[in-house]
Amino acid sequence: MDVRAAVAYQAGKPLEIETVHLEGPRAGEVLVEIKATGICHTDEFTLSGADPEGIFPAILGHEGAGVVVDVGPGVTSLKKGDHVIPLYTPECRECEYCLNPKTNLCQSIRTTQGQGVMPDGSSRFSIGGKPIFHYMGTSTFANFTVLPEIALAKIHPEAPFDKVCYIGCGVTTGIGAVINTAKAEPGCRAVVFGLGGIGLNVIQGLRMIGAEMIVGVDLNNDKKEWGERFGMTHFVNPSEVEGDLVPYLVDLTKGGADYSFECIGNVKVMRQALECAHKGWGESIVIGVAGAGQEISTRPFQLVTGRSWRGSAFGGARGRTDVPKIVDWYMQGLIEIDPMITHTMPLERINEGFDLMHAGKSIRGVVVY
Amino acid sequence: MDVRAAVAYQAGKPLEIETVHLEGPRAGEVLVEIKATGICHTDEFTLSGADPEGIFPAILGHEGAGVVVDVGPGVTSLKKGDHVIPLYTPECRECEYCLNPKTNLCQSIRTTQGQGVMPDGSSRFSIGGKPIFHYMGTSTFANFTVLPEIALAKIHPEAPFDKVCYIGCGVTTGIGAVINTAKAEPGCRAVVFGLGGIGLNVIQGLRMIGAEMIVGVDLNNDKKEWGERFGMTHFVNPSEVEGDLVPYLVDLTKGGADYSFECIGNVKVMRQALECAHKGWGESIVIGVAGAGQEISTRPFQLVTGRSWRGSAFGGARGRTDVPKIVDWYMQGLIEIDPMITHTMPLERINEGFDLMHAGKSIRGVVVY
Repeated sequence: MDVRAAVAYQAGKPLEIETVHLEGPRAGEVLVEIKATGICHTDEFTLSGADPEGIFPAILGHEGAGVVVDVGPGVTSLKKGDHVIPLYTPECRECEYCLNPKTNLCQSIRTTQGQGVMPDGSSRFSIGGKPIFHYMGTSTFANFTVLPEIALAKIHPEAPFDKVCYIGCGVTTGIGAVINTAKAEPGCRAVVFGLGGIGLNVIQGLRMIGAEMIVGVDLNNDKKEWGERFGMTHFVNPSEVEGDLVPYLVDLTKGGADYSFECIGNVKVMRQALECAHKGWGESIVIGVAGAGQEISTRPFQLVTGRSWRGSAFGGARGRTDVPKIVDWYMQGLIEIDPMITHTMPLERINEGFDLMHAGKSIRGVVVY
Repeated sequence: MDVRAAVAYQAGKPLEIETVHLEGPRAGEVLVEIKATGICHTDEFTLSGADPEGIFPAILGHEGAGVVVDVGPGVTSLKKGDHVIPLYTPECRECEYCLNPKTNLCQSIRTTQGQGVMPDGSSRFSIGGKPIFHYMGTSTFANFTVLPEIALAKIHPEAPFDKVCYIGCGVTTGIGAVINTAKAEPGCRAVVFGLGGIGLNVIQGLRMIGAEMIVGVDLNNDKKEWGERFGMTHFVNPSEVEGDLVPYLVDLTKGGADYSFECIGNVKVMRQALECAHKGWGESIVIGVAGAGQEISTRPFQLVTGRSWRGSAFGGARGRTDVPKIVDWYMQGLIEIDPMITHTMPLERINEGFDLMHAGKSIRGVVVY
């Protein structure tokens, strides 16, 4: 079938809206009509050329929501008409990783996913017979896409696509880092570095679990209002702090953060996040993705005196299990998404969505098909 | 009273055996006759001058065992005749740290302990009216010493002093890192870097909890037999590995270590220990103490893909609660200590004990009074 897609032909160039040929689903695969997709910094990271694993030409996009249109042979957990969110971290429930309760990093299709193809090694997308690569196993910048069954979460049938698509990445990454990775407790004190699309979701995750103090750190004072809207109790602009930021934050949190979250991808900030954690028990969670080759450092004394340094990918969530729950939380009003969707646009204006993100004008821009 | 002690007059010089005046216990303090004390790398670290917090003249030693001789006013948990192990990490059971189950780092007397004095700000040791500093709150290189009640673990009355003194530091640090910090599970695969007095105790801790694979890493092939004696299943000498050590260890452990332990204090090895941990869930525990100003580094990708970097001090043990249990385990034969005590000597030959440690000839040298 012919589908409409924004194609990334090469690094650093705008996406081009094209008619692309999409093959139907093979065994274990599902054809999904994408109804909406968020535009995320990870798409930008790959489009910019900074992603060492970026492959072109490809159809980017990994934060979508849509409806099952057709299923291939052997698909049992989904049927035509089901509402779904694509998962760039699948959940096969059979691999060594899925069977270990300590991780969400299902490895069953990692190799082919990283190569921009389906698990059988081929792409379903092509133009004029020439293959176009998949991206993160999702390729939601096309109005129809094919995914493995294990990479789709079945969600509440009444959830609005243009809002819950954000659960496909940003919302789950932020809230999940709080509840799955940190397992933060009621009454905790937390510091969140970077109040963008991830940081704000970390903040609302902390509000949900009953954190006592939620400190947001950002260089942009406009983010204060945003943070407060989702539960931030204290705002710190490092450029307005006299002296070093770390002792300032330790003092503000009465000894250090029980949990700190780095949501930027800046290795210097990752160090600050670790070092503002409380002696004895503070945990620092790296969420942001640093540039290729960059390294984090600290004195080992920071660890020996009880701080721990950890990371979180997709919020530690197992997509097929946890994403439907987060959609339900949204439907029940436990978490908010609507105010974070600051811009919507048709596919034809997707490059404007990237521009808004660049300029820091959007929290989340969403393409509605 | 007059006591015999090995006094560290200045950094880099041998200890001198002296008669030292010891004041009796004040309120909340206990006078202990030390019967035996281990000689540990931490004593050496301070004596060498490398410890930025080292103070002289002082009576070093922190790995002792002895008998209560007298108690000051208000002491309720100990009485004359009780057998005890001094605790350089006390357990007051009242401070914010003791009341947080995530840490063992009681802070109640940390400041004065770091200053080489008792909690009231004064020293009990003196020569010719001139004060000699305490060390780590323990000063076990004297045949009598005074400690706060909260810094003494009451132990099994039949436990041999010349063996269980080692539980005052090395044994607890190693076994505790496995059971308290890592909380390693039966069937796990572990890598231990450095097969000295700490590493061997990590190994026997792993054996005790039922680890499936215990890989020991050391540059000295003589340590292979030592490791095997305490449960090591595989020995790796990095100088005999072709290519990089980390992928070799990942391969050997079939994907990486569930837990890795750095027992040396080398920041490069700390990085290797982290990076040989299993993707998704591997935890690396820093036990060794690095030189002043040295830093650990890695790519944050290591954390985001599920490894965690932590540290352990005194094996995460709460001394008054956990040390008596470890003594009981020794008495019951659950753990071994005797073969690790490779040398014993009278106080007069304590400098020989340091020389043996320097030369790597002893696992543990013990002074018997």
